Formats: sequence, structure tokens, C-alpha cells
Amino acid sequence: MIGDGEAETASLATAWHSNKFLDPITDGAVLPILHLNGYKISNPTVLARIEHEELDHFFRGCGWNPLFVEGDDPETMHELMASTLEKAIEDIREIQKNAREQNDTTRPRWPMIVLRSPKGWTGPQVVDGLQIEGTFRAHQVPLLVDIEHPDHVALLESWMKSYKAEELFDEKGRLMPELAELAPKGNRRMGANPHANGGILLRNLIMPDFRLHAVTVPSPGAVNGQDTLVLGKFLRDIAKLNQKNFRVFGPDETLSNLLGAVFEVTNRQWDAREVANDEFLAPAGRVLDSMLSENQCEGWLEGYLLTGRHGLFNSYEAFIRIIDSMFSQHAKWLKVCLELPWRRKISSLNYLLASHVWQQDHNGFTHQDPGFLDHVINKKADIVRVYLPADANCLLSVFDHCLRSRNYVNVVVAGKHALPQWLTIEEAVVHCTEGIGIWQWASNDQEGEPDVVMGCCGDTPTLEILAAVSILREHLPDLKIRVINVVDLMKLQSASEHPHGLSELDYDALFTKDKHIIFGFHGYSSLVHRLTYRRTNRNLHVRGYKEEGTITTAFDMRVQNDLDRFHLVQDVVDRLPHLGSKGAYLKQEMKDMLIKHKNYIDEHGEDLPEIRNWKWGQHKSQQRTTSTKQPAVNQR
Amino acid sequence: MIGDGEAETASLATAWHSNKFLDPITDGAVLPILHLNGYKISNPTVLARIEHEELDHFFRGCGWNPLFVEGDDPETMHELMASTLEKAIEDIREIQKNAREQNDTTRPRWPMIVLRSPKGWTGPQVVDGLQIEGTFRAHQVPLLVDIEHPDHVALLESWMKSYKAEELFDEKGRLMPELAELAPKGNRRMGANPHANGGILLRNLIMPDFRLHAVTVPSPGAVNGQDTLVLGKFLRDIAKLNQKNFRVFGPDETLSNLLGAVFEVTNRQWDAREVANDEFLAPAGRVLDSMLSENQCEGWLEGYLLTGRHGLFNSYEAFIRIIDSMFSQHAKWLKVCLELPWRRKISSLNYLLASHVWQQDHNGFTHQDPGFLDHVINKKADIVRVYLPADANCLLSVFDHCLRSRNYVNVVVAGKHALPQWLTIEEAVVHCTEGIGIWQWASNDQEGEPDVVMGCCGDTPTLEILAAVSILREHLPDLKIRVINVVDLMKLQSASEHPHGLSELDYDALFTKDKHIIFGFHGYSSLVHRLTYRRTNRNLHVRGYKEEGTITTAFDMRVQNDLDRFHLVQDVVDRLPHLGSKGAYLKQEMKDMLIKHKNYIDEHGEDLPEIRNWKWGQHKSQQRTTSTKQPAVNQR
Repeated sequence: MIGDGEAETASLATAWHSNKFLDPITDGAVLPILHLNGYKISNPTVLARIEHEELDHFFRGCGWNPLFVEGDDPETMHELMASTLEKAIEDIREIQKNAREQNDTTRPRWPMIVLRSPKGWTGPQVVDGLQIEGTFRAHQVPLLVDIEHPDHVALLESWMKSYKAEELFDEKGRLMPELAELAPKGNRRMGANPHANGGILLRNLIMPDFRLHAVTVPSPGAVNGQDTLVLGKFLRDIAKLNQKNFRVFGPDETLSNLLGAVFEVTNRQWDAREVANDEFLAPAGRVLDSMLSENQCEGWLEGYLLTGRHGLFNSYEAFIRIIDSMFSQHAKWLKVCLELPWRRKISSLNYLLASHVWQQDHNGFTHQDPGFLDHVINKKADIVRVYLPADANCLLSVFDHCLRSRNYVNVVVAGKHALPQWLTIEEAVVHCTEGIGIWQWASNDQEGEPDVVMGCCGDTPTLEILAAVSILREHLPDLKIRVINVVDLMKLQSASEHPHGLSELDYDALFTKDKHIIFGFHGYSSLVHRLTYRRTNRNLHVRGYKEEGTITTAFDMRVQNDLDRFHLVQDVVDRLPHLGSKGAYLKQEMKDMLIKHKNYIDEHGEDLPEIRNWKWGQHKSQQRTTSTKQPAVNQR
Repeated sequence: MIGDGEAETASLATAWHSNKFLDPITDGAVLPILHLNGYKISNPTVLARIEHEELDHFFRGCGWNPLFVEGDDPETMHELMASTLEKAIEDIREIQKNAREQNDTTRPRWPMIVLRSPKGWTGPQVVDGLQIEGTFRAHQVPLLVDIEHPDHVALLESWMKSYKAEELFDEKGRLMPELAELAPKGNRRMGANPHANGGILLRNLIMPDFRLHAVTVPSPGAVNGQDTLVLGKFLRDIAKLNQKNFRVFGPDETLSNLLGAVFEVTNRQWDAREVANDEFLAPAGRVLDSMLSENQCEGWLEGYLLTGRHGLFNSYEAFIRIIDSMFSQHAKWLKVCLELPWRRKISSLNYLLASHVWQQDHNGFTHQDPGFLDHVINKKADIVRVYLPADANCLLSVFDHCLRSRNYVNVVVAGKHALPQWLTIEEAVVHCTEGIGIWQWASNDQEGEPDVVMGCCGDTPTLEILAAVSILREHLPDLKIRVINVVDLMKLQSASEHPHGLSELDYDALFTKDKHIIFGFHGYSSLVHRLTYRRTNRNLHVRGYKEEGTITTAFDMRVQNDLDRFHLVQDVVDRLPHLGSKGAYLKQEMKDMLIKHKNYIDEHGEDLPEIRNWKWGQHKSQQRTTSTKQPAVNQR
């Protein structure tokens, strides 16, 4: 039931069009009841004040067959409502029967009910000379009974007595047995309905082995890969094994986020008209991505999870902000559920944020907002998890974990463009399980202690940090560098604040207590600052997105935000004055490169060849470390 | 023009119902054109795949008179579109003529046009054997011409030649004079239209004197006041003086946010049906608060500002998150405008977030989200401003400033419940102009240096910090305490990061370099951490909202989040071990009080009398300071 007095965002919403995404053969049905009682807190509602014919047109235009229950006499209305409900349910059964017996998936015009009754119906009529029933004044508190309104006591009494408690309860206050008899039994009771406590119905996903889709990585950075493209194949296998238990949601982005492999085993659910050249549409598809509305996807997925099933929402990173408020409510709901012992755990709400801020081949400044992470971590630490896998194998490992988890909100940020792959699948599993770790093959401080720590989190920062490290190691071979990659963002927070947080000892062991840390971060740099506020080492210098960018080359996006290798090298030099002239000359070279870069992209419209073709391990110093610390060929 | 291929959130949106909020006499008109070209990036659109009759019903149900232009033959369609546009404009003129001559405000059925044409119309037909024109494949890049697709060059050539450049330009590449002649002249050119560069048309608001509405504050905390109720009267005066230049927007919250005074001089704009008992509805009202949709209010206000006029959006604090994404786009738009010298400044986007997280008389956990501030400050520092005035006089001063400002987004958080008033209007103006300052009348470290600094930001934290100070000064009269109140949140950030930020010298002078700071903050505590990350003094301990709360008493909300006086006193004791036994005994007393509080609210459903009736200055130590540092009676 939708109360028009609660939010016009509901009564006027896109959700009415969900009937184009419902298969009369395989799906159940919904009977929407619009309770048109006409008022919000102090205003009329819009749908209550248009003409009857317009209201009828509106719902027919949304694809429904509206049935009207209108009036203000309780007795008449009870009967009318009962008979209309009866008719609606018969209509639904008839539609389903026809569809299932005739295999007819023509989009049905499902019934819906408009219940128009007075607001505050049967409540106080007139209080202090003002009409209450049937007006906005019946919202919230129709009658204030307190020390300043003694005359309202009589009004309250007569209102309460109008319910005729003496007909409902016996002299001992017990509900009359013949009335108790009317209530449904067992699981049909509203509070015991397992569909409203979906964890009871939850069946674990049958999980295929994500390792089957691993990218073969002969040595770090030796091959390029498209992370979400790899993930798509894993999702395809999951969709295949869990046809009635798993769905993919997204606002028309399943293909553009490179998850199209799922269409090898299922389709997009679509029950409106089809024409030639449509792709992957079917009434019984398991992918819901044919309505370009983030609100719609979020609402559908939340509802699906609440019934005990599993799914994920893939979205452009910037536009997930559209559902900030909906995410908040779900996170709050999960938090409260943890306090209710009878509420069984449900599958986690999984977000895959692809097409992220650093990938702007077509889109520009409007498509750049990595701040969903900031929003998410304001919620309770026992609910929220944030992962930024650096390559495809890490993404596989992370997503396998997320889909098995319960009662969390998991946010995973991943790219779709071809970028270097760093870890073998075995390494990725270990790294992602730890959530954070030193990349020994990129570091050269094994024999002593680092001069500088280079941290990275997210695919693009990881690439640039490693490129900066390769420049530093080539030019300053004596400089001892430790490279730390972060997959599980919450590792940065203190253990006392988040269950995933590193202990102070572990954090200090990784990042040192006092060495300078140059940290490349996927999102807004202040997020790392707030997570590490309590940490001992204050020499933390974070580069991240700073609201600069337009439609430009991939590398120039990083340059505009000081997250590129040439800025990062300068950051290191700035923090290590003992480098002296060597540092000054290197800094000059970096500045020269930035000018060369700008001039080149102005002229050619693409990045410098040495940027496009850069690979880890081109320089001897890195090859040496790689070969001693790491088997050169992956044994899989 | 609304392209159905861009976002179903637009083509199916609540905005169609804006026609109930348009006065045919005093307002202009809009002619919406739905360009139904049928496809998104890889899917059909919903409205393109319903039946013609449903589409017609949908728009009639939304209150429009739809005119259809459908086909795929360019010549025919050009003529049909031209004649339909002509008819629509005639219809609009007829409606306006009738309304204005007959003074007839009956809601008109305005015309709208559905333009159904093939996507990628007249572009490439078939590429690599796949149909392009009229399918989703025409989205973005219909034809990829690169080194791997040499055969596409001929396709591109024939496509480009189909525009017959030789008929449009002469042999020197100049547009044919007879064609140039067709373009509009001067300000009627699209790029020169002043309505699209609203700053040109902007007229300053006529600003009344906010001091006329000042609350008389004989001494700090002596009287209570309802901050937004006071602001409402100032807004009323502004609305009166600027009838065609100022509007108030909100989702049915103008009254509940206590801004109802504006209805003394104007009404809610409403052109749907009216009935008895409606309040303040009129076709020509200047308040738009009769549609309960935050998205709608934000969209309306942004559009209004862009035409060079002024306004504000009042909203419940938690639900402003619904428009996170819309705010982002406006902030990004303002940032880019600053880089365009021809774009004139427009009035700031002003948010008044009332009914905030600490005021939960009816609503509960779902209504608690102070995180809009976190979101806002991720945008460019030269765009965003955040104010948390501690009382009504501060709110008046802040809002006067905001309404005079240009090209900012101003976020103001203010309460509506009766809370102590601290500053006279003269003091408030000075304090708000500085944005941050020591409240000398509450401090007792004037003769030396503080033992502890107590910071506060927001009405509720200010109250609790002052209550904690009064307890500390009563029990530990030798303890030297400095009280600092923050109105302008960005003062906390470094001057190098935000134009309002305090210099390091000023910050250190206020907060000291090493004394413990106990800081009560309105929002999530980590926001203060990230703003102060670079500051010298690391002994900062922030209490704020930590996602705890339900429908409970006002004071219990603070207790649940450790922001109450009894927790704050304990925080001070914890940080000052030299207090010894005195501290231990005081801490015990505070713990006892918390238990007493819990028991009392369980039994009585309201806060302890000593909480409800608490006033600053009840204890001698405070009276002494007050009388020496401050005139006891305000001279106004």
C-alpha cells in the first residue's frame, strides 16, 4: 500500500512502470493499493486534486487497470473494498492462468486499486473549531491532550470509545474468541510471514570456482586486462548455477560495464513490446537493466534481497550518488536488524562501481564523483565494507567473498579499461584475504628500513604509484622504497573503530611510525585522512581526486589531480631533502615531462607513447628484484 | 527537450506534474518536447515500447495535452514538426490570453509534443552487417573509424556528404547569406539569450534589516527561542519586498520548519483543485512546497537561480541526501562557470536544513543523517560554505549574508525547538562575521592559559558543551576552561585549503598547540578530524552523531551518542589525569546521573527536570564571570 500523504516521490514515481519487468508465467504478482487520502503534513497531495478522468488516465498510461474504491461511509466502504480486492485477485489469477496455460507473455494490464477515503477517517471531527477529519490536520497528532488542553480529554474519550472496545474484548480484556478466530494461522500471520523475514528462506548461492577465470600473470604488469570483463564471466557462471536465486541490477550499464557475459546464460527481463534488433530481452530474464533509473534498480534489489535472495547493483561510480539516501535507509535497517534476535541474516547489498572517476573516455566532469565511499563509511562499522581491488584477480577474489557474505553493504570499485595486471590468482587470494600488504616485488627495503613508503588503493593509483616507483628506482637506486597496496579500505581505520581495522602494531609495522608515506588514493584524499586520524605516523601525504577533470586522456585526468607518476615522484623528493642535488635534478625532469605531456596531448589527442606503452620491470633495477623475489612464471 | 534515451528518471519523472504549479496569468509557459527516439545506450526505452493509447493516457494523466509528431521521412517530419510547434504555441497563447483577460486561473491543459523519430536518424544505416539507424547502436559512436576499421572511412564519407555541405557553404567555406539570414539576431540567439546567462538579469534582493527580528538576550542563556521561527519573520519581510524576485522551496515543510510567517505575505503556488480547509494555496503563490519531492524542489530552485533570481530550499536534514547527486552537478556547474569570463554570477544556492538529527520528537533513526555536510565539502573550496549558527541571532546574521552572496552553495543547519539563546544581535553579528571565536563569558582562562579547550559547533552541541562547562566550573573551580564556538565550519580547515580557513597562527592561538580539546559537533565526528588533519594540536577529541538513536527524548538522543554534558565532563576528566581524586569523584557523579536519566525517562517519558530546566549561570562561579565580562542587560 502506498500512502499518497507520505511522499509524492512514491505516488508519482517511476516504480509504477515496474509492470514492464514482470513475467506473468515465472514471477508472482503485486497488487498495488494507492491510498489516496488526499493530504500530506500541511498540503493536499497532487493526485488527490486532479480530475477523476486524469487519475484514471495516469494509471492506464502507467500500464495498470485501475479499480476505484471511493467514499466516506465506513460500512459501505468495507464492503466495496472487500469486493474490489476479490475482483483484483480474481483478475490476477485469470492473467496468470492464461499466461501459464497458453504460454502467453503478452504484457498484462494488471489491476491496481485506488482507495480514496478521508484522512483521519473516523477520528476527531472538529477540534478547537477546526475541521480535522478529511483535512491535512489529521496528519501526525490530530488532538493534543496535555495540561494546556484539558477540554480535549473528552474529545479523546469519545474518539477512543467509538472503537467500541466492549464489542471486541470480554470483561477480562481478552479478545473475543470469534474475532481471534478470524486471524490467519501460523506463517500466514503478517508477523510470521517468512517472505518478510527473508533470511529464513535464504538458500546459499551455488558458487563456481572464481579461479577458473583467473588472468595468467607471468610477472607483475606483464599483461593487461579489463577487470570487469573478467568478473563478467564469473558472474555468468553464478547466474547459470543460480537461475532462481540471483539477479544482476543496473541502469542500462551491464554491457557498458563489460558484464555482458551474463547474457550468454540469461536475458534482460522485459515484458513490453519487442522489435527487430533488440538484444537479450525476454520476459523471464534475470538481469534488470532496462530502466535507466538508479532509484529503481536500488529499490528492486533491496526488495529482492529482503526476500532472501542474492544480487548485485552495477553502476557508474558518479551516479550511484542518486541513491545515497536509499543506501542510508538500508544500512540503518541492517543495523537495527542486528539488534533483533528473531531477524535472520540476509544476503549483503553488493555494489559494483565501474566506469569510475579515472576513466573518462567519453564523459567529463559531470561523471566524476568518487564520494560514495565517504558516504558509506559514515554508517555503522559492523555493516559497511569497502574494497578497491587493483586488478582482475583481486576483483574475482573480492567479489567471491562479497557474494558469500551476509548483512553487509559491500562497495567494490573496479575499472573496465585495459590496465596492467599485477598478481597471480594465488597471490591475489592471499592479498585480498589480508586486505592490505607490502608488494615485495615492487619494494627494495627488504634488507633494512624504507626511506619512503608508497601506498596505493584503487586500480589507477596503483598503476601510477608503481610507475613513480620505477622512475625513483631508476634514478635513485639507493633509495629504499616500500610499496603497500590496500584492497580493503577499512584496514586503514583503527581496530577499535572498525572490525577490519589493523591494530596499531600492525599498522606501524607496515607504514612505520615516522617515515614519509606518499599515498595514491582512488577517491577524495580527505577520506584517507579521516580513516588514519588516530594513527601514529603523521607523515602521510595523500593524492586523490580533487574535483578537476574534463573529457581528456586517461593520463591527463591523473595529471589534473596530481595523481600521476610525475607529480608523485616530486612528492617524494619534496619530503626527502637529503636527496640534495639528485632530487633537484629529478624534480626538474618530472616538471619537464609534465610540460611535454601537455604539449603532446594538445597536438595528438592521445597520451605520450611512453605513457601508453609503459610497463613495470623495464628497468634493470626492477627486473633484478622481480626475479629474485618472485617466480618468473606462474605455475598454474 | 527531454531525450528519453538519456534517463528514464527524466522521461517518467514527477516533473511532468509541475503543471499544477504554474499560474497562467503571472508565469510564463514551458513547451516540453519528449524526443522519443526509443533507445538508451543498449536498451529500448520504456515509453517507446508501450502502446500509443497508453502513452497518450500517460501524458493526459499528467495533465498535458499531448501532440504527436511521428515518422521517419525527414521532409514530411520537418513540416509536421513545424506545424505542430505552431499549433502548440498558438494553444499556449490562447490559454494565456483567456487566463489574463478573463482572470481565469483554472488549470489549463498545456500542450506538449511527443517527437517520435528514429535514433541516429539520417546517420549510417548498416555497419558491419548490423542495423544502426533506429536502434540502440546509434547511441554514442555509431561508426568507429580507426586503423582497425579502414572500410569505415567510406561509410563516414557518405554519411558526412549526406549533409550536402555544398548547398550550405560557398566555395570559400562561408555560410550562404540567405541561410545566415534565417538565424535570430542579438539576444534572441541561443548563445546570447540573457535567460540562459541569468546573472545578466540578476537584480539584488531588497534586503530588510534582520536586526528588527533579533531576540532580546538579557544575558547568555537567559531566554529560550526557536531559531527557525525567528528566521521565518525575516524571510517574510524579504518575500514582501521582493515579490517577483524571491521564492521559498521545500517538500511540504515550510510550516513544520516554522517558516510559516511567509504566508502572511504570499501563498503556496498551486493551480490544481482547491477545497475547503486548504491553507495558503493560490495560483500565484511564491512558496513552492506542495509537492513532497526533494528532487522536484531542488530542480525548481536550481532553474529559478539560473534565470537570475533568488531563493532557498528548506528541508529536513536527513532527506536532503535525496538530492546529493543534484547538488553535486550544481556545484560542478558553478566551478566551471568561474572559469568562463562571460558567465555572470548568479545568486547562491541556499539550503536551510532544519528538523535536524538532534530533534526527534516524532521521527526516529530513519530521520537521522547529518552527512550532507560531509558530501558538500568534497566540492571545490571556492564554491561551498557551511554554517551552524548556535542561536536565532546568529541564524539571522548568517542568512542575511547567504542571501546576499553569489555563486556559492551555502548550507545552513538550524533548529526549530526552543533552546537557550546566547548572544545579543550585536554580539551575533561580530561572532558570525568572524565565524569562530572564544565565548569569553563562558570561559575562565583569561588570566593565564586554559587547562582544557571546549569547542562546539551547532545548536545542540553548544548547549551540551556549555552545560558541561557549568558542571566543571561548579565542581572544579580552579580548572581553567576556554569555550570556542564555531559558526563557519570551514574556519577549521587550513587557510591553504579553504578561503575561510584560519591561518595556523590564528588556529593555534585559539585552540592552543597542545592542550586537550573536547569538541562537540553537530554531525559525524570524523568530519572535524578531516578538516583539522593538518593542524598542530593533535589532542582533539570530537563527539558527534554516531548512528545511534530512535524516537526518544531530546536529551537521550545526545546520551545515546555520548554528546551529552555528563559524557563530555567525563571526557575532560579522562584527559586531565592531574585532577586526581577530584576527577574520579566527579566522573562517578556523572555516571550516576546517566543512570538516573535512563531510569527517569523510562518511567516518565520525558527528560529529568534538571535537564529540562537547566540554565546557564545558575552557579555563582558563572554569574561572577558573566557580570564582570558582559553587561548584564542588553542595551537595545
